[in-house]
Amino acid sequence: MLNGLYEHSAWIAEQALSQRPFRSLAHLKHAMVQVLGAAGLAAQLAVIRAHPELAGKAMVDSHLTVESTHEQDRAGLTHCTPQEFAKIHQLNAAYKAKFDFPFILAVRGPRGTGLLKQEIIETFERRLQGHPSFELQECLRNIHRIVEIRLNDKFGVAPTAGNQVWDWHEALAQFSEPLYQEEGQLTVTYLTDAHRACATHLVQLMSDSGFDEVVIDAVGNVVGRYLSKQHAARTLLTGSHYDTVRNGGKYDGRLGIFVPIACVRALHAHGQRLPFHLEVVAFAEEEGQRFKAAFLGSSSLTGQFDPSWLDQTDVHGTTMRTAMAQAGLNPLDIASLRRQPEDYLGFVEVHIEQGPVLAELNLPLGVVTSINGSVRYQAEIIGTACHAGTTPMDRRHDAAAAAGELILAIEKRACRDGDSVATVGQLLVPHGSINVVPGRCQFSLDMRAPSDAQRDAMVRDALTALAEICARRQVRYTLEETLRAACAPSAPAWQKRWEQAVNALGIPVHCMPSGAGHDAMKLHEIMPQAMLFVRGQNAGISHNRLESTTSDDMQLAVDAFSQLLSQLAGEP
Amino acid sequence: MLNGLYEHSAWIAEQALSQRPFRSLAHLKHAMVQVLGAAGLAAQLAVIRAHPELAGKAMVDSHLTVESTHEQDRAGLTHCTPQEFAKIHQLNAAYKAKFDFPFILAVRGPRGTGLLKQEIIETFERRLQGHPSFELQECLRNIHRIVEIRLNDKFGVAPTAGNQVWDWHEALAQFSEPLYQEEGQLTVTYLTDAHRACATHLVQLMSDSGFDEVVIDAVGNVVGRYLSKQHAARTLLTGSHYDTVRNGGKYDGRLGIFVPIACVRALHAHGQRLPFHLEVVAFAEEEGQRFKAAFLGSSSLTGQFDPSWLDQTDVHGTTMRTAMAQAGLNPLDIASLRRQPEDYLGFVEVHIEQGPVLAELNLPLGVVTSINGSVRYQAEIIGTACHAGTTPMDRRHDAAAAAGELILAIEKRACRDGDSVATVGQLLVPHGSINVVPGRCQFSLDMRAPSDAQRDAMVRDALTALAEICARRQVRYTLEETLRAACAPSAPAWQKRWEQAVNALGIPVHCMPSGAGHDAMKLHEIMPQAMLFVRGQNAGISHNRLESTTSDDMQLAVDAFSQLLSQLAGEP
Repeated sequence: MLNGLYEHSAWIAEQALSQRPFRSLAHLKHAMVQVLGAAGLAAQLAVIRAHPELAGKAMVDSHLTVESTHEQDRAGLTHCTPQEFAKIHQLNAAYKAKFDFPFILAVRGPRGTGLLKQEIIETFERRLQGHPSFELQECLRNIHRIVEIRLNDKFGVAPTAGNQVWDWHEALAQFSEPLYQEEGQLTVTYLTDAHRACATHLVQLMSDSGFDEVVIDAVGNVVGRYLSKQHAARTLLTGSHYDTVRNGGKYDGRLGIFVPIACVRALHAHGQRLPFHLEVVAFAEEEGQRFKAAFLGSSSLTGQFDPSWLDQTDVHGTTMRTAMAQAGLNPLDIASLRRQPEDYLGFVEVHIEQGPVLAELNLPLGVVTSINGSVRYQAEIIGTACHAGTTPMDRRHDAAAAAGELILAIEKRACRDGDSVATVGQLLVPHGSINVVPGRCQFSLDMRAPSDAQRDAMVRDALTALAEICARRQVRYTLEETLRAACAPSAPAWQKRWEQAVNALGIPVHCMPSGAGHDAMKLHEIMPQAMLFVRGQNAGISHNRLESTTSDDMQLAVDAFSQLLSQLAGEP
Repeated sequence: MLNGLYEHSAWIAEQALSQRPFRSLAHLKHAMVQVLGAAGLAAQLAVIRAHPELAGKAMVDSHLTVESTHEQDRAGLTHCTPQEFAKIHQLNAAYKAKFDFPFILAVRGPRGTGLLKQEIIETFERRLQGHPSFELQECLRNIHRIVEIRLNDKFGVAPTAGNQVWDWHEALAQFSEPLYQEEGQLTVTYLTDAHRACATHLVQLMSDSGFDEVVIDAVGNVVGRYLSKQHAARTLLTGSHYDTVRNGGKYDGRLGIFVPIACVRALHAHGQRLPFHLEVVAFAEEEGQRFKAAFLGSSSLTGQFDPSWLDQTDVHGTTMRTAMAQAGLNPLDIASLRRQPEDYLGFVEVHIEQGPVLAELNLPLGVVTSINGSVRYQAEIIGTACHAGTTPMDRRHDAAAAAGELILAIEKRACRDGDSVATVGQLLVPHGSINVVPGRCQFSLDMRAPSDAQRDAMVRDALTALAEICARRQVRYTLEETLRAACAPSAPAWQKRWEQAVNALGIPVHCMPSGAGHDAMKLHEIMPQAMLFVRGQNAGISHNRLESTTSDDMQLAVDAFSQLLSQLAGEP
């Protein structure tokens, strides 16, 4: 049954089979991942090297690509031009020279239908730039993906709901602001034409999927309700945002809208009703891209929409008030969007991870323990600008060297906690000259941890380090706190429901903090909440067009959400 | 005789007097500097605290300024407006609160004629920002300066030539490019109107000072010759540049033009001739500000002016060729400017130090041992941009953290040599976001040392460190060498002549490398050379409008140059 899954490495499937019985196909897939992971570097390299080079169709007679002829037919490397063929040949040679193993890519891609020729070549070029140890793991991940697709074929299983959710993302991504759309970039900021087109599209999708009520509310949220037969029942709230950052990914936010829609669609198709109302909210705004304020959608539901935000302006000078009027929204109605906690069971949110953890662990899903608290600063170190040739090292007050020391100090401090993060994302010596010792260095500081206490302890140490470094180097500094967000630990009962749902799919339960902020962080203030993360491809990159996930992982997210609904329905 | 030099600290003068006899007033001044320097921190603080606060004229009845009433009358704090008076009061309070000693400023300033009210307030505001340990020393330096002026008064000695040289700098600084002149900034780049006005002004000054021949040569240098009676005698070449960086100082380059002019003026006034010709060149261009090429003036004398430079363009697209044509210069004649080494004794250059060493040592002059060799790079580290919230510390490839580590590594490496310097002057995370781990970090690298071998060893270690850091952090880098200049050690015989000249003035001889490049570096290629440095005020700041030196130090430079001429004249 499992013959031919791996190129010349049948032992992986054989060893995995010793773990029978399997609770699901996902369980079997993970067993094989574990066998290869435990086999050690030499065995992993041998598995990779058993694969032939990536080949264009012109070479199909002499060599196969990494996948079978059947798979190659479904991928995009057919009918290569001589230029493309030469390019692939050259990339293969460069890759082999750098890594000493062949480039492996699951050419059937995240939807299983095949990558485009251009996507394959771009991926090849990008991965050629990678670090050898990362690239080794990326090849193994691609082998797992190839095997996953082969297993689906062998078992005649298709991730039908996952494919549908994948396709919905594609359809929604057709709407982008014109300036970005020309360059193939996805940008949907609050109340632009593209944003309003998304809302209309989502209304249609929810209606088609069987929701009983679908409205665009006063802040621009698309709200669909799938009602229980018991009118007095409480409501489970879920959803995520449909706006994007500039040049963002297709899945950030939207996955958390489409997954519950897929569940409602299935319930509706089977004529099933839940013993509670299900309310799916596509939040209009979370990213804070067009105006300074962020979380406009979820803030409205918690009664925290601040009317003074209406006077904020975008880069063109348009106020939020004007933008809302143009969209036919009445800001005076926002206050009425506030939800009464007693009407609600809680809030759950599905979201793409936006980080590398699940990808590195080869796990499709993760359960969120807490949304990290964060503190942000804008800082400047002021030393003394002086001649880089004439000022002896021991007489310098170098602002950049002080900043460099701080970067390393906070890196070390965050590492000590294990699950804290600290980042200097912006760094600049203003008007720096090659021959002038930096007199000023500006930087940002972003620190996050799973608990406010842990975060505050780190912040304290970081600021002490800054003061100590500056005193020792005889430079001074300015520091402005620009954000302080409390962390939002998951409600234990709701986290437990997600854990049970994941476990029911035969997948190891992995619990993890969320480093990024999410709408759940806002809803946290008025009701219990917990989130489910879905693995991202490409090292979990996000806020980037390379953001991606597979339709198989989306299927698991839909399955987990359905599990959660069933569990909840069965609870006394 | 020495009563009243110090406020309530007569012991300084008394202890200094025990070192009698003194070879010069400069020797006595330095003896007092040494007494206070050796007295320790407690005694220094007591001396500082013996001074009253800086006071506006409105307070003259109740309190004196740091200097006597007589001195205050010559300074600018007379007739303060109520606002100015309040400002000074506030600055005094803030300064006292920060440093716990009173602000001390030699209000008679670098020329002895008094600072303007605005200058005093600006200096106060700037120094309030300083580090306590620096500011303590700066107060002591100002006390030394107050005492220097008092001593001059007591002995009835005026730095006549120094004052003249000081005034010449002021007069030349009236010419600045219009855009900068409006903001009170000095900018004179190659062949602009301001630059050509400087040349005309210098021709006039040289002619008035008794030079026998004065010309503007084909590259724009102003060349004055003070001839020996022996027509066949060889020539001593000296000079420096009259162009400036943007928003530069008044003394950078120009001091090395005016000091020998003052010597010629004195020789001419006394009807004295030297047994060698003296050629003073005001080089037209050294800084490389308008066009990419630098050292245009001195390169012409060494025959290294590259005609391809004529096609370089400034920011407005004007070629050097066009600029020269507009200035009436004929580039075809530049080749003929090449000097024949056999006609020359050597090249000497006086220059403001452009660094803090002499100021910290309280020494007015320094003898240069070598112009440091330098290597410059433009570099970029490429890591992986990722979400600052979601990417665990141990999974990051942070380009800025790698750069920070390199900055500290090269700082430590340069320190190890003692007299090497290494600088990251430009530093930038392009398009950095507060919540994104830096994927790229661009920086410059400038490394200099007194010998090429020492420099190359440092460069090797720096590049090894860069490679090691990047390998360990799994990031990559690019590196472009943009400059490599060999060092120019002083000719021993000429360095010796400067040492003897300084010693003859009763000043301790301090030998030091030049960290900055100078015209002497170019002349080095065809004749022996050695340089004399003059102390800068304000921690030796340069390429900055705060660049300054006193007319007393200028007097000593003129005296040293005259000494060198006398010695040379007396040599067999």
